[in-house]
Amino acid sequence: MAYEPPRIAVTTDIVLFTIREGVLQVLLLRRAIPPFINVWALPGGFVELHEALEDNARRKLHEETGLDNIYLEQLYTFGALGRDPRERVVSVAYVALTPADDLHPEAETRAGTVAWHRVDPLPALAFDHAEIIAMARQRLVAKLDYSTIAFQFLPPQFTLSDVQDIYEIIQGQPMDKRNFRKWVLALDDLEETGDYRTGHHRPAMLYRLKNPDLVRITK
Amino acid sequence: MAYEPPRIAVTTDIVLFTIREGVLQVLLLRRAIPPFINVWALPGGFVELHEALEDNARRKLHEETGLDNIYLEQLYTFGALGRDPRERVVSVAYVALTPADDLHPEAETRAGTVAWHRVDPLPALAFDHAEIIAMARQRLVAKLDYSTIAFQFLPPQFTLSDVQDIYEIIQGQPMDKRNFRKWVLALDDLEETGDYRTGHHRPAMLYRLKNPDLVRITK
Repeated sequence: MAYEPPRIAVTTDIVLFTIREGVLQVLLLRRAIPPFINVWALPGGFVELHEALEDNARRKLHEETGLDNIYLEQLYTFGALGRDPRERVVSVAYVALTPADDLHPEAETRAGTVAWHRVDPLPALAFDHAEIIAMARQRLVAKLDYSTIAFQFLPPQFTLSDVQDIYEIIQGQPMDKRNFRKWVLALDDLEETGDYRTGHHRPAMLYRLKNPDLVRITK
Repeated sequence: MAYEPPRIAVTTDIVLFTIREGVLQVLLLRRAIPPFINVWALPGGFVELHEALEDNARRKLHEETGLDNIYLEQLYTFGALGRDPRERVVSVAYVALTPADDLHPEAETRAGTVAWHRVDPLPALAFDHAEIIAMARQRLVAKLDYSTIAFQFLPPQFTLSDVQDIYEIIQGQPMDKRNFRKWVLALDDLEETGDYRTGHHRPAMLYRLKNPDLVRITK
């Protein structure tokens, strides 16, 4: 007789970060169904038999938030016994980043209310989602050091100060402006748009990414 | 009616590296059962309903190779459609490291023949295991730069030249001996044993790890 492997429900959970109001925020959804009804949770859901993992993450993010074309990378797979009160569920978690303007701060979707929340402090969360968000933050802080992931927080055109703001907010400490500019331009990922942002400061050059979809390792 | 989520077979696959004969090697098992009968594959297997993911990886590694107490970390979860010809299978891959002496080069276990193979070139591999090993190598090379993972390749007592050998083999390039020693001692993870290795070179101090089970991020 052929061996019958156990079969397990598989979900994705997406930790979508943005920078809003000068702080790191994460997108949460107030669950409209049990378990954890009315409790905040990460967007995500069950993987279909004929659906690739990342396709599921993108589909769920779209269904639950309306967002598309988001930068997404796999974070870690959470499979502890008892992490879901219904049955054994293994969840493949993703980290996603978006510029703040892409989502209205509070939106009603089919799956419930979605809203941005500051990561400090977080509200009470369903399942092991606090643990997933904590690991996602660690990954984000680490990747700022050795990749171009931070640019995914920026709109299509941005100043060098905008980039520095992202780093300072996530790393929680100020950086030397001249050194930072030298470093960021040496990456050779940016090009000048020729336009300037004007306002109450002196005009600042607007840059764009040479390859907006590329997140690369820098060392 | 309650929603019934799809349920999917979940496996682990373990990429166990060692350094033997001056090169990086990986442990493979020649499959004794279909699919891919007689083809080399990674150790691993189906996760039981009441078994945590890492527990499964450790159990499979023990059953198929006899090895215990191995350093193990989760790598990535592979879930492409069609990666297993039997049915949909999502596999959580792990990277593991061991000193070479822990396993006889070729051993017969219940699951088939296990043997060390050089990573360059690899034999033909079952499933998507070539892709999994490629990602595991990338992770290993990257972690050498910012963690103490390389020490997991070493026996309980080792010289500083032994450590340098590990780095040079995996990174594929020679390093300056004085700078390397300064760097490795500055990590403050090693302590002198008081013993020396003698032979045809001048006696070399033997070191051990202060905390043998700890792999830490160094920057």
